[in-house]
Amino acid sequence: MLRMDFNFAEIDAILNARSIAIVGASGKPGKFGNAFVLTQIAMGFEGPMYLVNPGETEILGRKTYPDLRSLPGVPDLVYITIPAHLSLEILRDCGRLGVKGVIIIAAGFREIGPEGESLEREALRLAREGGFRIIGPNCFGIYNPRNRLTLLPGHDLSTTPGDTAFISQSGGFSVHLARLAKSLGIHFSAVVSYGNATDIGESDLLRYFGQDPQTRFIAGYLEGTRNGRSLLEALREAARRKPVILWKVGRSEASRRAVCSHTGSLAGSSEIWSAALAQTGVIPASGIDEILDVLLALKHLGRRPGKRLLLVGGGGGLGAYGADLAGQEGLEIPLLGADTDTRLREILKRAGAVVANPLDIGTPLIPLPMFDAAIREAARNPSSDILVFDLALNFGRNMVGEEGLNQATDTLILARKESGKPVAAVLYSRACDPEDMKTEQALRRMRHRLLEQGVAVFPSMARAIRAIALANR
Amino acid sequence: MLRMDFNFAEIDAILNARSIAIVGASGKPGKFGNAFVLTQIAMGFEGPMYLVNPGETEILGRKTYPDLRSLPGVPDLVYITIPAHLSLEILRDCGRLGVKGVIIIAAGFREIGPEGESLEREALRLAREGGFRIIGPNCFGIYNPRNRLTLLPGHDLSTTPGDTAFISQSGGFSVHLARLAKSLGIHFSAVVSYGNATDIGESDLLRYFGQDPQTRFIAGYLEGTRNGRSLLEALREAARRKPVILWKVGRSEASRRAVCSHTGSLAGSSEIWSAALAQTGVIPASGIDEILDVLLALKHLGRRPGKRLLLVGGGGGLGAYGADLAGQEGLEIPLLGADTDTRLREILKRAGAVVANPLDIGTPLIPLPMFDAAIREAARNPSSDILVFDLALNFGRNMVGEEGLNQATDTLILARKESGKPVAAVLYSRACDPEDMKTEQALRRMRHRLLEQGVAVFPSMARAIRAIALANR
Repeated sequence: MLRMDFNFAEIDAILNARSIAIVGASGKPGKFGNAFVLTQIAMGFEGPMYLVNPGETEILGRKTYPDLRSLPGVPDLVYITIPAHLSLEILRDCGRLGVKGVIIIAAGFREIGPEGESLEREALRLAREGGFRIIGPNCFGIYNPRNRLTLLPGHDLSTTPGDTAFISQSGGFSVHLARLAKSLGIHFSAVVSYGNATDIGESDLLRYFGQDPQTRFIAGYLEGTRNGRSLLEALREAARRKPVILWKVGRSEASRRAVCSHTGSLAGSSEIWSAALAQTGVIPASGIDEILDVLLALKHLGRRPGKRLLLVGGGGGLGAYGADLAGQEGLEIPLLGADTDTRLREILKRAGAVVANPLDIGTPLIPLPMFDAAIREAARNPSSDILVFDLALNFGRNMVGEEGLNQATDTLILARKESGKPVAAVLYSRACDPEDMKTEQALRRMRHRLLEQGVAVFPSMARAIRAIALANR
Repeated sequence: MLRMDFNFAEIDAILNARSIAIVGASGKPGKFGNAFVLTQIAMGFEGPMYLVNPGETEILGRKTYPDLRSLPGVPDLVYITIPAHLSLEILRDCGRLGVKGVIIIAAGFREIGPEGESLEREALRLAREGGFRIIGPNCFGIYNPRNRLTLLPGHDLSTTPGDTAFISQSGGFSVHLARLAKSLGIHFSAVVSYGNATDIGESDLLRYFGQDPQTRFIAGYLEGTRNGRSLLEALREAARRKPVILWKVGRSEASRRAVCSHTGSLAGSSEIWSAALAQTGVIPASGIDEILDVLLALKHLGRRPGKRLLLVGGGGGLGAYGADLAGQEGLEIPLLGADTDTRLREILKRAGAVVANPLDIGTPLIPLPMFDAAIREAARNPSSDILVFDLALNFGRNMVGEEGLNQATDTLILARKESGKPVAAVLYSRACDPEDMKTEQALRRMRHRLLEQGVAVFPSMARAIRAIALANR
């Protein structure tokens, strides 16, 4: 009865709000309303930001208003950071003023039981009556680098706009993913933490980002839905236009219990979900790390990049391991053929290196000119679609120095250009001595350079292979 | 015909050699014989180390001998670092002199085909004839912190003796694991890279470490065996005495190919292997990371620590995720009961935190005194065997400062002491900005303190849950 038809412009207006009001703004450290104001200021939201608190006239040196009716203008978007039971009065004001959207941050709605549920129902009724839309309640808000709105603990997110959208029922995960993505060079069109999804929910957001020309990739974290049919349609529709990665939790009884307490969602049977999702064309993922891995794979390797891998590693064990993982995920390690084998054998005149696919370049690292020649020769071979390098053993410690790391990086970048094939690299130091940070820093610089040059970087062979398999779904 | 019965003292004499000779020692950078000498010097081997090279009289300022017969004493152990085809002559000398053991580093034997195979057969015959034992060929040697022998690129391995043995057909993995283990506080009784296993192989080493009183845990990386029955017996025998973790590769066709080129092993059918290994009581693992995770779990949580987890995380999504993973691995997340729920609700008077198991302590982090009280209250509850904390979202950035990290660490350590239950923590920053190393360093310090105090630390919830499940096998 209260369902609204999907409307692109309504969601667009909220995400691209040019003026906001924060109800419950506070100068007191420890309050949500304080953290939220500080976060938005630090992020540098560019439009008017009205602070509302009936008990204050000035917060953090800014004029503060007793209520929404006293504002000098009508904000596009109102944030409600006060406790749940006080929010209905604010929603009535929103309706009277004609705001476009409201984001309710507070928890204490549907997820706490019948009392919260009726509060949430009333909030939705007021939104319909007042002609505005709600994101939340029980959420961390939205992040849009273009107008510099940000999630609750998101003062340090990137200000660079990008091509990835992430929608999440969990506020914690929305911030976590956006933060990790920043140093991996993944930038966002928007991130939406939508919590209990009382009004704008997963289906609306999928439709929105499916149509949004700025969004090339969509990822989502889902606990449950109140309209399975609509969700599956939205997923199918979005996945026809662009890659959609979906992480659905609630596979165990304890997990369904957690989901219900978290966002008041019914997780549903995991078998039914898996079967239904398989029909939609979405890429199934599990965990924030896996979503990031798949985003890197899609960005740098492409959608369905091919299943034939050239696997290069330092040490024969690594090749055996990589081939095990590839086999498990339905990927292939084709033979290179006699000609390439001969040329490689000439380059790698050294027992211990194994000329084949997987190609063992030895460990500790062979001389860099030999490394360079072997990699470029093997990359030229037409049998493979993707080049996968596991350099974890070679560069796990400062065995070649930063200059050596730079040269090896140049080789991978050149092999990519010359062969025209996408390249994935495994670069990882789990060594965690707190007093030796130099190796870690050198590896991060190498990772950074590789990512900038279009090479996908993963922290383990297992994650690289899994991401490539998922990008091929 | 050439098989030898297992003899503890023979292997013991090699691992605890008090004098060594290095045939092929060299002063020329880039040569194996050079790297090997430098590595042993850096590690500080304490007994006589004789350098042998017919072309030199002095290497790195040390007197050098033309051959083994010219040495002033008979070394316990001879390393052969010269190419394969030159090694037989040296082995004849070893037999004449009466050395106890030989380690052949060079590749170029069985793994390269018929010619190498006959070379290897002849080497074994000479060993039997000369009354000494061989490790290798095609290996990186041995690491023993007690006499300070070390693997080929292992100058920086720990000099602290420990209770873990690792045997590996891959030299690269043997060094990789030993190096990563160092900063995780895992120390070794010995690591043996045994390569082609022409003489001393996996079964002998399993029997040896099974009986070795200094070894409490055994881990192994295996490509194949030439005597399956003997291996299965050795595994059963060792696993009856102490935990044995085994990683067996060769599950795909490409992997079996890699294994054959690497150590000349036949990997065999993976179905037969899985079925056979399941009967031996060993813990199956896959990957160096997983072996390390299981070692940490065994060390800090114990063997078969129980399947009932109290799962504490920042953010409701994390609880749902953890519960999904636990369900998948056959672990339980029991309810806490009304009394604990009530007391937790009093402590966590704050919407957004969810009082249950999984316990959501909110994100960003709740005030530390509240965190402390809630954790200790929940830990006391008798329903769980193990406490699992995922603090990845809370401490992913410097949100609480180093002082806050220290206080949170104190809480976990105290909860462990008060409850008498083992504790696992997930601590992980994948943020990889090369110019921000402070967060990483603070996290490493926290990890270090937790490990020192007997808390197992894992880099992701998925790996923590998997390791706990494997420790319960």
